[in-house]
Amino acid sequence: MTYCLGMLLDEGLVMMADTRTNAGVDNFSMYKKLHLLAEGPDRTIYACTAGNLSVTQTVMTLICEGLAAEGPEGEMRRSLHEAGTMFRAAQLVGEAIQIAGRSVGRALESLNISANSAILLGGRIGNQPPALFLMYDAGNFIQCKPEVPFFQIGETKYGRPILDREVRSDTPLAEAVKCGFLSFDAAMASNLGVARPIDLMVMPSDRRRPILSHRVERDDAYFNEVSKRWSDLLHAGTRAIPNPPFMA
Amino acid sequence: MTYCLGMLLDEGLVMMADTRTNAGVDNFSMYKKLHLLAEGPDRTIYACTAGNLSVTQTVMTLICEGLAAEGPEGEMRRSLHEAGTMFRAAQLVGEAIQIAGRSVGRALESLNISANSAILLGGRIGNQPPALFLMYDAGNFIQCKPEVPFFQIGETKYGRPILDREVRSDTPLAEAVKCGFLSFDAAMASNLGVARPIDLMVMPSDRRRPILSHRVERDDAYFNEVSKRWSDLLHAGTRAIPNPPFMA
Repeated sequence: MTYCLGMLLDEGLVMMADTRTNAGVDNFSMYKKLHLLAEGPDRTIYACTAGNLSVTQTVMTLICEGLAAEGPEGEMRRSLHEAGTMFRAAQLVGEAIQIAGRSVGRALESLNISANSAILLGGRIGNQPPALFLMYDAGNFIQCKPEVPFFQIGETKYGRPILDREVRSDTPLAEAVKCGFLSFDAAMASNLGVARPIDLMVMPSDRRRPILSHRVERDDAYFNEVSKRWSDLLHAGTRAIPNPPFMA
Repeated sequence: MTYCLGMLLDEGLVMMADTRTNAGVDNFSMYKKLHLLAEGPDRTIYACTAGNLSVTQTVMTLICEGLAAEGPEGEMRRSLHEAGTMFRAAQLVGEAIQIAGRSVGRALESLNISANSAILLGGRIGNQPPALFLMYDAGNFIQCKPEVPFFQIGETKYGRPILDREVRSDTPLAEAVKCGFLSFDAAMASNLGVARPIDLMVMPSDRRRPILSHRVERDDAYFNEVSKRWSDLLHAGTRAIPNPPFMA
């Protein structure tokens, strides 16, 4: 399992991913699932991946090596470095998903092994504001909008209530990262398939502020404090609410 | 969708079920999913049902009409009124699940419609303490034990974290019902397929205390208060936790 979260807020873009993968419960491993796909003076593009690891690794590698294309001077490569907009970048990633589906995906399905995968694609190109896309198995995708300013992939449900309650498009970045940690804390509390380290990327809309890349390690003191305080708070809060009157 | 919860505590048995069913998002309806299956001076047996409604209704009706059996004087019926223990009751319900699977289930699967269902069976017979079983599609079942004193079926994940955090086998009944409401509140906040009214049954281990049967209506003042206070508390709690130091 895996849990990844993307939040597209007025103040910027946040992407978070855990690092646990597992095949069954007896084969756990650690893989980075937040990938820097393109970096240059005019663009920064990240992806988070969930689902079958062989499929998502194939997609990431296809993207990084460039997709084949016929040009006027023979074979050339198309990559995220030529995409003019984030929408074009999403189309290219969608194409890579389709290529992977036709090779690895079909072979897996013939063995009745799930080839399902999902990708969060986020970043910015040129002077355009940050954008966030949720990409599906067929290579199709939807774009994050202010009404529900986040996407989740992987083990989404345990960590969803806190996002529904607390994250709005005008939530400040630092507050949103904190809510994201609470969401990961909920997922980790109920599913062994989600675990630290958690990789984090924060891209402020304000270009004067630097892009932050951070790893929350297994023993991270701040995350431990958030987890402990949240647990204490829920416990005290539960006790503070009166018992049902019909049970008195 | 549906959400049902059973908790087997030192102080007794709690079973809760919402009343929403839906086929897709454009066909919502209301059905009672907490059923009284047997009631007599020596036994009280309830079931909560989730999954394909035609399958679970078939199972419930088979149980209530009695399963066919050959006796010394021709055909007779076996019902929960003859079961000597809750384990035997679970075996009978398992048999009904298998009969429904062979008829309705197979027909549905031939049309690629999910026939999945799950049942919580709880109650007590004679002087035995209350027992709770989680029954699967194949008619097999597991029994609730003190280490994890609850079972969920249907839309389980949103409402699970609060149970993991707060419900232990020594949790008092009134406190457990309150936690159950918080669990339903989380499920309802994130999934339209779970909704009030919620049916509730509380069977104290102490036989001198009556069995409680209660319906939480759509406008129930106590549930509204729990929901509001919990929301306020999570909001205030989130704000009280300091922001990440690396975002300062």
